[in-house]
Amino acid sequence: MKYRTSSPHFPKEDIEEILPKISEILEGKGLLSMGDNVKEFESSFSSFVGSRAAVATNSCSSALEISLNVLGVGSGDEVIVPTQTFIATGSSVVKVGAKPIFCEINKNFLIDFEDLKKKINKHTKAVVIVHFAGLIHEDILNIRKFLNEKGIFLIEDAAHAIGSSLNGIKAGNFGDLSCFSFFSTKNMTTGEGGMITSNNIDLSKLCSSIRNRGLDLDSSSEQFINIGSNSRMTEIQALLGIYQLKRIQEFNLHRNRIAEIYNQELNSFFDSNILSRHTQSKDNVSSYWKYWISLEEGYFEASDRIKIKEEMNALSIPVDWAYSPLLHLQPVFKKMYDISEGYLPFSEEMSKRHICLPIHALISEEDAVFIIKKFSEIVSKLTQVNNKK
Amino acid sequence: MKYRTSSPHFPKEDIEEILPKISEILEGKGLLSMGDNVKEFESSFSSFVGSRAAVATNSCSSALEISLNVLGVGSGDEVIVPTQTFIATGSSVVKVGAKPIFCEINKNFLIDFEDLKKKINKHTKAVVIVHFAGLIHEDILNIRKFLNEKGIFLIEDAAHAIGSSLNGIKAGNFGDLSCFSFFSTKNMTTGEGGMITSNNIDLSKLCSSIRNRGLDLDSSSEQFINIGSNSRMTEIQALLGIYQLKRIQEFNLHRNRIAEIYNQELNSFFDSNILSRHTQSKDNVSSYWKYWISLEEGYFEASDRIKIKEEMNALSIPVDWAYSPLLHLQPVFKKMYDISEGYLPFSEEMSKRHICLPIHALISEEDAVFIIKKFSEIVSKLTQVNNKK
Repeated sequence: MKYRTSSPHFPKEDIEEILPKISEILEGKGLLSMGDNVKEFESSFSSFVGSRAAVATNSCSSALEISLNVLGVGSGDEVIVPTQTFIATGSSVVKVGAKPIFCEINKNFLIDFEDLKKKINKHTKAVVIVHFAGLIHEDILNIRKFLNEKGIFLIEDAAHAIGSSLNGIKAGNFGDLSCFSFFSTKNMTTGEGGMITSNNIDLSKLCSSIRNRGLDLDSSSEQFINIGSNSRMTEIQALLGIYQLKRIQEFNLHRNRIAEIYNQELNSFFDSNILSRHTQSKDNVSSYWKYWISLEEGYFEASDRIKIKEEMNALSIPVDWAYSPLLHLQPVFKKMYDISEGYLPFSEEMSKRHICLPIHALISEEDAVFIIKKFSEIVSKLTQVNNKK
Repeated sequence: MKYRTSSPHFPKEDIEEILPKISEILEGKGLLSMGDNVKEFESSFSSFVGSRAAVATNSCSSALEISLNVLGVGSGDEVIVPTQTFIATGSSVVKVGAKPIFCEINKNFLIDFEDLKKKINKHTKAVVIVHFAGLIHEDILNIRKFLNEKGIFLIEDAAHAIGSSLNGIKAGNFGDLSCFSFFSTKNMTTGEGGMITSNNIDLSKLCSSIRNRGLDLDSSSEQFINIGSNSRMTEIQALLGIYQLKRIQEFNLHRNRIAEIYNQELNSFFDSNILSRHTQSKDNVSSYWKYWISLEEGYFEASDRIKIKEEMNALSIPVDWAYSPLLHLQPVFKKMYDISEGYLPFSEEMSKRHICLPIHALISEEDAVFIIKKFSEIVSKLTQVNNKK
């Protein structure tokens, strides 16, 4: 296909600077691991986010496991997670010995605060909030206050939300610990990679020890004081991260422009409730990792998104939907916790009706105009056909 | 210092081929993750080892955790590990919920078969055997047979032993699963990285799923059927691995030549039992990750290795000793299992008396001649001083 659903992007001038630095590392003039690039990337990333500290990891999955571990989540504990999310949000909870409690999402595809409240009990040790598609929950400060009062930790799964902000505060500052992803589909990438940000220096230091096999960071010899693993990022990954981070504001602005082009074209559909999308206050800035819209009931049949996909694909435009099946319906959890369809009815219905359009650094504004015109035509045709039935 | 204890080495002509390939990846002509380089590296590595399958990971620590996990080691189980090893051999056992049982080493710094037998009980689920310094245990086939009869799994921690062989069989073929390390101090490197080899295709497939967040490898969609994590190797790491693997026989032969130079010079000390080293049959080929010798009791005092280190350092020659403290005396395990010095007396004594000389691709034969002459002089002087006391 001409377009892609996602794509990493390293501008030519960045590649020209990166390659000689990789060469130096390979020539033995720099370290391959545990050197200055990781430190610089951590420092630049925490500056960008506005957090006090940042710890780089090999993946966001590792970041989540380390975060749960550091907060003391373990056997007998429950952790509430939204169901519209990647597998790692749930499996990390199981990895530390605790039980994930799957929670409904709201119309913004973010955790449903009312359902969250219902799911809290004496075993609840933490809540993971996912900034799905890059949008921060408008109620996040109230959620945090609510959880704080109950002594429950808040972890941000900010894999989608590098650079997202609410009222000027960036994702990565709302949770006790916050986890980011630099996988190659994300807004910026290190190939594989993750980061844990925090405003608590003690927690951050413990994260750093645990991703470094439990090393005593205050000892000059190899003394291990915690149980950890080797979840370190390499120097080459960090080097890529340093250059990508310099581009992230430009990349995110571009994504927002593409989203605006899509929104403009679809406005009449939104106004007539044929399509819907998330709502956000003006001080809520999305990183737009995904651009999703929902095909509203009454105008579309359940199978329509397949038809749209086929027609779009025929034009060399890929469309997809995020996280299918939903977390609680992944085979491993269905079996482990004896869960069937219908367990989270609102999320299941929402999930079936959404569709994502391509949005990334390599979709130009001209591409976006073409893509959304075609999408609009297909949607118009379908609603007319459906009306006639 | 002029010399180093270890050093990665990428020959110039390899760097010239690697850089354009990294450039292509960054330009978007190749994948950053989950692409052909990892597959090629896995395939080349299993061919080199002679195993049926290989699964690349982000680190050897992850490889050990995945291996224990896949073999069903968990809560209530015990895993016997030699104490002369890296932290991960023990912490991986704790990470899967089981208990490490620390075992004595023998005069070759390898697990003591007699002590191993004593430590087996009904809870013993697996034994991890470490090919310390690159040497395979001469009794490994008997150990395997003994464990097989008891239904106990054998895992090779082959972090040091890339290319080591016994009777023509390479490390990576003796255990139910075998774990390798490509950390930057190892005989070949990917910066950070690991590999799990196996001759059991089902076990290997399960390893592959678990390092890939529990993915159903037979499904075309993102269905997760196991609890796993993201322990994947990146494409750039795998690219480095592909080139390093082409050099491993050359690198290992070089290490063996350096060891031979050291041995020749020290032969008279060995003959008179002033120094000792490991013994090996002629069909036991070491990768010589480390070259260690032991300062024999009667000729040396406990503090002598510090003196040797200082005098060698003054000549710009670093010397070190592996794994100090021993695994069972690492703070995290001392505290967790209430262990004190004296728990494994033979290993503790052995460990205090050994010293390692530089051995790697960048130590030339001329360097080796110089290094061992100086070492020899210092040892001679010390034994004369000690004799006069």
